Amino acid sequence: MKRIAILGSTGSIGTQTLEVVRENGDIEVLGLAAGSNITLLEEQIRQFHPRLAAVWSEEKAIELRTRIADTDTKVVSGMDGLIEVSILKDTEILVTAIVGMIGIRPTIEAIKAGKDIALANKETLVTAGHIIMPLAAEKNVSILPVDSEHSAIFQSLQGNEHKAIHKILLTASGGPFRGRTEEELLDIKVEDALKHPNWSMGQKITIDSSTMVNKGLEVIEAKWLFQVDVDQVQVIVQPQSIIHSMVEYVDGAIMAELGTPDMKLPIQYALYYPHRRYLPGERLDFYSLGRLEFEKPDMRTFYGLALAYEAGRAGGTLPTVFNAANELAVSQFLNRQIKYLEIMEIIEDCMQAHKNIENPTLQQILDTEAATYERINSRR
Amino acid sequence: MKRIAILGSTGSIGTQTLEVVRENGDIEVLGLAAGSNITLLEEQIRQFHPRLAAVWSEEKAIELRTRIADTDTKVVSGMDGLIEVSILKDTEILVTAIVGMIGIRPTIEAIKAGKDIALANKETLVTAGHIIMPLAAEKNVSILPVDSEHSAIFQSLQGNEHKAIHKILLTASGGPFRGRTEEELLDIKVEDALKHPNWSMGQKITIDSSTMVNKGLEVIEAKWLFQVDVDQVQVIVQPQSIIHSMVEYVDGAIMAELGTPDMKLPIQYALYYPHRRYLPGERLDFYSLGRLEFEKPDMRTFYGLALAYEAGRAGGTLPTVFNAANELAVSQFLNRQIKYLEIMEIIEDCMQAHKNIENPTLQQILDTEAATYERINSRR
Repeated sequence: MKRIAILGSTGSIGTQTLEVVRENGDIEVLGLAAGSNITLLEEQIRQFHPRLAAVWSEEKAIELRTRIADTDTKVVSGMDGLIEVSILKDTEILVTAIVGMIGIRPTIEAIKAGKDIALANKETLVTAGHIIMPLAAEKNVSILPVDSEHSAIFQSLQGNEHKAIHKILLTASGGPFRGRTEEELLDIKVEDALKHPNWSMGQKITIDSSTMVNKGLEVIEAKWLFQVDVDQVQVIVQPQSIIHSMVEYVDGAIMAELGTPDMKLPIQYALYYPHRRYLPGERLDFYSLGRLEFEKPDMRTFYGLALAYEAGRAGGTLPTVFNAANELAVSQFLNRQIKYLEIMEIIEDCMQAHKNIENPTLQQILDTEAATYERINSRR
Repeated sequence: MKRIAILGSTGSIGTQTLEVVRENGDIEVLGLAAGSNITLLEEQIRQFHPRLAAVWSEEKAIELRTRIADTDTKVVSGMDGLIEVSILKDTEILVTAIVGMIGIRPTIEAIKAGKDIALANKETLVTAGHIIMPLAAEKNVSILPVDSEHSAIFQSLQGNEHKAIHKILLTASGGPFRGRTEEELLDIKVEDALKHPNWSMGQKITIDSSTMVNKGLEVIEAKWLFQVDVDQVQVIVQPQSIIHSMVEYVDGAIMAELGTPDMKLPIQYALYYPHRRYLPGERLDFYSLGRLEFEKPDMRTFYGLALAYEAGRAGGTLPTVFNAANELAVSQFLNRQIKYLEIMEIIEDCMQAHKNIENPTLQQILDTEAATYERINSRR
């Protein structure tokens, strides 16, 4: 019986993780943490009987305590609550499916407590990879990628030596605006940007996918996860999202993982690694697939991706600026406060204004995030 | 320093194996065996200084002995010579790049002597897989595929458990006649059939590739190498020959190996397995590649492939009949004695006439080969 805890259990990855748990029937969920959706969290508690549940707001935590007074689940709140779920005694794997830099501290504490991390929180490695990866190595903890692309890379690395890696080929769908010119992006509406051609995901990541900023975050994440230079990570547009990513080796061989788009696959792979289990779902049929296409990404129009390479190359606090600026800009776009192209303009402006700090502490990273938010808010 | 011996050193795989040896500089070649090309064999002896060289004909062996009297290489001949090279003291890997069923006995003797086998001889597993595979398991010997497709499958299996395999996706270029109807194949000439779109190979295998009999042999080989049912092996036409083959797992994930067509990759992978080494050569560029296409094979027109499935399913001596009938028919086609479509007709006729022997001994396999040749020769 495997034992896990989940940060972000009511989100897209969190709920799919619980589906995988339910379908397999041999994983025990000891802890759940959610933001504010206590209605769904209550359902999850009643179904999975965790020892501990964390809610971000103390107010919601109080409400939840009343609602589930008939159960044995203890309810905690705030950052202390998140950390309590992260370091729960007896859990082997912490699934970090929480969105935002809020996930960094709990992840660090979980690693210190010797938990393997099934990582779905991008910000952790993008902003604090230089802290997380050495700590994980020191504690002999595995960082198991849950992202579709990074899981594909991880799968393509099995049975190979790190020194044999030549480059990482990170595939991208190109999003709904692939092939458009800058002029054609001027009047993009929120509704347009929320239509992703292949994957069903949360709102923020869907916008990030349309700007290719998501791919940029993945490039930086890949650098840390697989210990390569960002310039060893090549983005390849593969509009059908069938090839989930690849690794090119020194002998010219390219290993790839392909399949229908289904987030439950990388989730399940991370939970049972190195074993594979049957997973219900649609299978890829090459006879009806017909073809796969490949393109070079348009980094001039979608220059958020170029900015990500710049941030990844520089390291320090610059990736934090890239990420935080994007986070707030996307939120402003979703609230219809700014235009679509301003997302990239804001990221670029913040990066240009930033004085980079090498090898920052967690506090410096969080201060950089706050300063970036402040700069953007003072624009208006 | 790795030590190897090569059966079939003057053929396409043999010479490329020696190129890999030369480029790496840390493999010692202790034995070489060739058919009759003693001019090339002499060159190889002078370059690689093997202890032992075998030539098939005693006459040629005598000539070679005179030519290389100034070297320390001992020259042997016939089946005894082949076996002597195969079981040479101190070799770790025997590369079986010899063509035809002549390769079976030396391979068996090498396995008995504890040598790992870098297998490029299709006939070995197609006709005697039921003898070879249990023997290799008993002697704890690795059978390392050198074929491009089987190497791709082998690479795609790394880090995975056998029980997680759902099916093997064996890719095929479809050959030069892909898309043609039976009528359009009536007047195919030897010159047309020798033009393979992607791979540069020997004559016999190029014809086999055009009829898809080669793919049929690979299906049967895959059954033995990867211990699956033939019906778990699905042939997918991928005309660009970029995806070299794939494995689909129980969770729906498909692992694939891709690259430019270069036989030196699977050769080198087998020689250094599980390590990868730098290999000079052209790299795959997805930006210029543009697309990959997939098709269902036309098993009605190219029914040699359907016959292979039938032979593989039945087992026993039927795969020997399939292989031997094809071998002689192709040779007759190359000698302009029969028409192109007669190749498949001959195979079908021999298979229909054959009384299958289950679990045959090596002698019964060789007798079946002889009987098949006799039946074809008596046609004329």
